[in-house]
Parts: sequence; C-alpha cells; structure tokens
Amino acid sequence: MNYKFANRLSFLQPNPLRENARKNMMHPEVISFAFGFPPEEAFPIEKMAKISKALYELPDHEVFLQYGDTKGHPMLLEPLAKRLETVYDVYDEQSDDLMIVSGSTQGMDLTVKAFCNEGDIVLMEAQTFSGAVNAVLSYGAIAKPIEMKGETIDVEQVESALANDTEGKIKLIYLIPTFQNPLGTSMPLEDRHAIYEIAKKYGVVIYEDDPYGDLLYEGEPIPRIKSFDTEGLVIYSGSFSKILAPSTRLGFIAASKPIIEKLILGKQSVDSHTNQYWQLIAAKLMTDYDFEAHIDSLRALYREKFEAMIEGLEKINPELLTYIRPTGGYFLCAKLADDVCSVKFNDYLIDHHVAIIPGNVMSVEKKGFEKYFRLNFTKPSIEEIETGMAIINDALKFAVKSSNKTIAS
Amino acid sequence: MNYKFANRLSFLQPNPLRENARKNMMHPEVISFAFGFPPEEAFPIEKMAKISKALYELPDHEVFLQYGDTKGHPMLLEPLAKRLETVYDVYDEQSDDLMIVSGSTQGMDLTVKAFCNEGDIVLMEAQTFSGAVNAVLSYGAIAKPIEMKGETIDVEQVESALANDTEGKIKLIYLIPTFQNPLGTSMPLEDRHAIYEIAKKYGVVIYEDDPYGDLLYEGEPIPRIKSFDTEGLVIYSGSFSKILAPSTRLGFIAASKPIIEKLILGKQSVDSHTNQYWQLIAAKLMTDYDFEAHIDSLRALYREKFEAMIEGLEKINPELLTYIRPTGGYFLCAKLADDVCSVKFNDYLIDHHVAIIPGNVMSVEKKGFEKYFRLNFTKPSIEEIETGMAIINDALKFAVKSSNKTIAS
Repeated sequence: MNYKFANRLSFLQPNPLRENARKNMMHPEVISFAFGFPPEEAFPIEKMAKISKALYELPDHEVFLQYGDTKGHPMLLEPLAKRLETVYDVYDEQSDDLMIVSGSTQGMDLTVKAFCNEGDIVLMEAQTFSGAVNAVLSYGAIAKPIEMKGETIDVEQVESALANDTEGKIKLIYLIPTFQNPLGTSMPLEDRHAIYEIAKKYGVVIYEDDPYGDLLYEGEPIPRIKSFDTEGLVIYSGSFSKILAPSTRLGFIAASKPIIEKLILGKQSVDSHTNQYWQLIAAKLMTDYDFEAHIDSLRALYREKFEAMIEGLEKINPELLTYIRPTGGYFLCAKLADDVCSVKFNDYLIDHHVAIIPGNVMSVEKKGFEKYFRLNFTKPSIEEIETGMAIINDALKFAVKSSNKTIAS
Repeated sequence: MNYKFANRLSFLQPNPLRENARKNMMHPEVISFAFGFPPEEAFPIEKMAKISKALYELPDHEVFLQYGDTKGHPMLLEPLAKRLETVYDVYDEQSDDLMIVSGSTQGMDLTVKAFCNEGDIVLMEAQTFSGAVNAVLSYGAIAKPIEMKGETIDVEQVESALANDTEGKIKLIYLIPTFQNPLGTSMPLEDRHAIYEIAKKYGVVIYEDDPYGDLLYEGEPIPRIKSFDTEGLVIYSGSFSKILAPSTRLGFIAASKPIIEKLILGKQSVDSHTNQYWQLIAAKLMTDYDFEAHIDSLRALYREKFEAMIEGLEKINPELLTYIRPTGGYFLCAKLADDVCSVKFNDYLIDHHVAIIPGNVMSVEKKGFEKYFRLNFTKPSIEEIETGMAIINDALKFAVKSSNKTIAS
C-alpha cells in the first residue's frame, strides 16, 4: 500500500537522536550532557508515595480515575493560579484563565492549532526548542527564525519582520525568555518590555514558554513578559516536567479568558483531558507540603552541578571555546572557535562516550549552528560533569590540532 | 484585543453539555444514563494500589517518572501486542507495529493529522462519536456522514461515495464496527468483509475504533476488520478507558509499520509521550495478574446492568419507543415514535432528574436525529436503572399525551 499522507507532515523525518535517546542514556559508559532530563535525586519520592497511597485509600476513586474536566482539576488549578499570581505575577483572576495541558509541548501544539492557518508565520528565536518548531510546521505554518543578538532574540529584527508583514501572516511570536533552550541565557528586562510593545503595536500574540523559570541559581528573577501584559497578548506556558517529573505529562497555560476558551475547545478533540492522578499529586504537593521549599531544594541541587560545569568550562582555553554564562535553568550553549573542526570534535566525543546536542538540532532551520552545542548539567552527577568536561577539553585540543594537521598536510 | 483565530477551529463552540458533565453527575438526585463512564466498582483498586506501591519502592524511579519513548513503554507494548495477536488477531509482528497514545481520542487526532489535508474527506457513520467528528473538523477536513442501515453503516453508500470521488479527496473511513457509539450495535461480518474490499479497491484507509470491544455480553465475538487486513489498510484503535480507568489516558494503535512511524512523528510534537505511570500499571496488570479474568469480571458486572436496562425497555410500549438490542458495549440507542414530542420528552426527563444524550449530539451533522437518544448502562446502579427506566416510561406517556393535547387545543 502506497499511503497518501498529508502534506503538513512531509517535513517530518524519523529523528534517530530522539529514538535512541533512552538507549544512549542506558549505555553504561556514556556521560550524557544531551537531554533535558532531571536526575533521580530530584524526584520528591517520599512525598509522592505518601500522596499516592492516600489516593488509593480514598472511599471514592473517581476523583483520580474517572474522566475529568478538559480544563483541569480544580484541586490543582486553584493553588497553581495562586502561585502564578503571587510568585510570578503572570496570572490575574479578573482577565486571565488557567488550564492544564499534557506537558507544555501540548500547550504550543494547541496554540498553533488555534491561531495559525496553513501558510501563517510564527517568529521564533533562531536557536530554539525543536518541539516548538515541529508544532508550528505540523499545522502547515511557517517557522521564521529571528537572529540571536548575544544572549537573546534581536528585537529590532522582530519589529522589522512585523513591519514588512503587509499580509498579516505573522500570528505568533514564540519565545523562551527565561533560561532559554538551548542558550540557557535570559532576555534582559528592557528587551522584554520592547518586544511586548512591538507585539501590542502590531496586535500579535506572544507565546512565553517558561518551563525552566523556577530554577534560578544566581541574581534576581527577571519579571516575565506576561507580568506586564495589560492587553491579553501573552500566552504564558509552564510545566511540571522540570520541577516535579517529566512523565507526569503536566503543563499549564495562563492566558486571557477568550484564548483559554479556544484552547480548551481544541484540547477536547486532542486528548479530552490530562490524566488526573498526576494533577492530584501535584495539587497535594502544593497544598499539603511546602512547595517553595521543594523548589529551593532543586535550586540547591542544580546550582552545585551548574557551578561544576562552569568550573570545567573555565579550565578550557577560551580561544577554543566560548559560552555565555546563564543564571539558571537546565542548559548552557558553547561555541567552537573557528579553527576547531566540529566534525572531529563530535567524533572524538562519540568515541569517548560523551553525549551533547549539536547546535543545528536546536535551531529553526536545522543548519547554520554547526559550531554550537548544548550542554545539560542537571542530569549528570558532579563526577560525571568533571570527567565529561575534561573529555570535552581533550576533544577541543584534538579537533584543533588534527584539523591544523589536515590543513598543513 | 480582537484575536484572529485560525479558520479550522471556527466550527468549535463551547459545549455546555460537556462543560456541565461532571457538575450534572454530582447532582445528588440525578440518575445519569448520559456519559460513557465506568462505575467505581469497575476499577481494580487493590491490584492498582499494590502495583503503584511497588513502583515507588523501586530503587530507580526513572522507569515511571522520566521522559519516555514516544512509541510507548516496552513493558506495556509487549504484553499488549501479544494480547491483540492472540485474542483478536489484529496485530501481526511481521507487518504491524503498535504505539501507545494518550487516550484513543488522540489516536484519531494523530491519524487525521497524518492523512488529511484541508478539504480532504473522512467518511463516517451518520451517528457516531462526537470526539472523532471534531478531530476531523479541527484539521480543516470534512466529515461526510454515511446513512445507517439498521444496525450499521450503509456499505453501498460508502462504495458510491468512493466511486464518485474523482478528485481522491476521501482519505479515511472512520468506523466503530463493534458496539457502536451511540447505537451499541455491531456491524455484521459480511459487511466488515464488504467494506474492507471496498477500501482495498479504492486504496482508502479504514480507522477501526474499538474502545468497547472487550465488553461482550451475548453471543460470539465478530472478527475485527483488522483481522483480515492483508494490505496494511486498517488502523486498529483500542483503549484502556473502558477496561481499566478513563483517567489513565491510555489508548493504543495497531497498524502497518509505515503508518505507525508517521503517527509517532506526529505525536512527538503533540505531547512527546504518554505518561509512564499508567503504562506500567496497565503492563503489570497484564503480566503479573490474570487480565482476562479482570475482563470477565467487567463483562459480568455490565451484563447484569445491561439486562436490567433491557428489562426496563421491555416494559415500555413499543408503539412509543423502539431500539435495536446490542450484544455488548456501553450504550444502547432508542428512538421515539413519531407521535412522541421529543422536546416534551426531554423536558420531562430534566424535570425528573434523568440525564440522557440527545441523538443530535452523537451525529456528524448535529441534526436529523431529534427522535433518538443514547442510554449508558455501565455507570448507573441496577436500582438507578430500574427507577430511571420507569421515569423514561412516564416521560413517553407524558410526551405523547400532552403533544396530542396540544394538537387538539
């Protein structure tokens, strides 16, 4: 049978990187800086086990086993709304609404479904989360990369793209302003204000993806774009994947009431609702335990690993490798110097069982970032970070030396 | 802000029925025959609690908390493939593959995403699952109703639709052949063969939705269309919602390897993977316990309720109400006689706190089935079924009597 698949998915090819992700992670010798995974020690197992046991001991189990509301379980929506309002000022009861989604990936999928006709355009940071790019493409919309200027998107290029969009094709601006993926860096406050004003001027919606925002290790938090949204222009997306566990498949969206109403309608035919067991586990962690203390413990755990990685990077000759130091999150992004051969560098790492994500993978156009690679520091142990960074140092020396040789020979 | 939403979702309006579903169910006086919910006593709580406890006691919790494979967890895929092969002959290791989806609703969403361009056509039973209709419409595809002929779709009309489809716009035939929703009836074997041959002749894919198939109460099971699929034309979709618990959000798709490969690519940008906690609970129920005995206990539980409802229907004057007796599943569908006023009938039921689903809700065009209503018999107790069916009998007498009066006055 010769299947006639829809045009919109023709861009999709099997991603061996993703397919082999778990297999690679299982390799006994691999030191992986590749994936955005939390480590075993980040899971609040004892609390989750207690809450889970109590759920099974309830007289009525429909609360976590029956069909649920598409919007989410009120027991989670209430404390979550309160936290978003008080900690980050990204939710306003008067104008906003909140919904639970099946991982923040679904938030972007539903948003593109709701806003983009085929041929519409989404502006994105040139280096960004591949899942968001695929969500755009999978509805036949166009992902238009905007160049990065140091640690964040070039705001002037955003304005110029909108000014030139005479047909009104640009429907969304997708941003990860805080602890960006893959860069790890954060958009400065003045840029956040500037891009909000541009969105307001052109009447375009901003999708502020913030799955890492709680994980601040240095300095003060930067106000979220949603916190100064008076016009209902910003869709704020968060996740429990990085602060509880990825397999909960729990994310959430805070946005104006008309937007949430539309996203709920979309979600009804997508997966009906998000599993309630994890909604209730998260809810109880927020109401019966000290959730901010849990976040603090994650910050302490990851800060130590972050500093170990920075220490490893500082031992590397800056003529071979540069990076911008993040202040939080899951990743940082490094750039090979011009005379380091990226192919030889990557081959050396594979031979020595160190996994990284090549820059092109986390980019809109899947090209142009051969010299970049992303490093995750939350999953590996401190010891693995030390060993792995030493191997990266060796790989750089090998790749510059042998490429010089090649040039010389 | 005046949002410019995508055209594809313009058909979607808030569904008060759905929004109020859980609220209605909570009303202390309501007898609900409305929703396709399992009852509390259907959940294998003790076994689930034991398996859950063991998961939390594992030395490594990543097995159910970490990011997982988009395709599903091998611990579930293996016993599930074996069950589908041995019990229903709908999976063949040589040609088929199997994937886990987040509820069978997602299976249809991904299938439409993969097969239908905007303007493409999906043939559907005129009375069918509203979630599947919305999945079709939400990609800008067209849901084309095919008339029902007694207990199943009119196969000749399917052939004639395909014969007249000179542009090749028809990409899928969506069917619930076994214990159809809302009819409860099953497509006879000869029709299953006929429709498969038609699909083969025109090279069109059949989506065989089978969420209720295990719940047989009378007679012998009818072979699934997928069981005689030699060409890789049939996508077989199943669910754990009705045989374990809806909020597990676990469904599965068995189809040819190229189709599953495409659906996995689609799922990556939709929700990355399905929560692993419930995948492992389901896996352990299949490998460490007698899963077929669990299914048998559900059949016994529901058979009794099914018979109570049939008994209630038999007390009703067949000049006022007719129905086709199913042999399994979750629902049956009844039809008001011409001289019963459907508005008065429904008003009486609301006044007397009996909930049903009006026929138009579970239809492609949301009209033309005013005289029909769907009854669920799995969720209410035997006592509720007896009381509720007596109220339905009263409602019929009221609606025929008072409508005559109205005509007379």
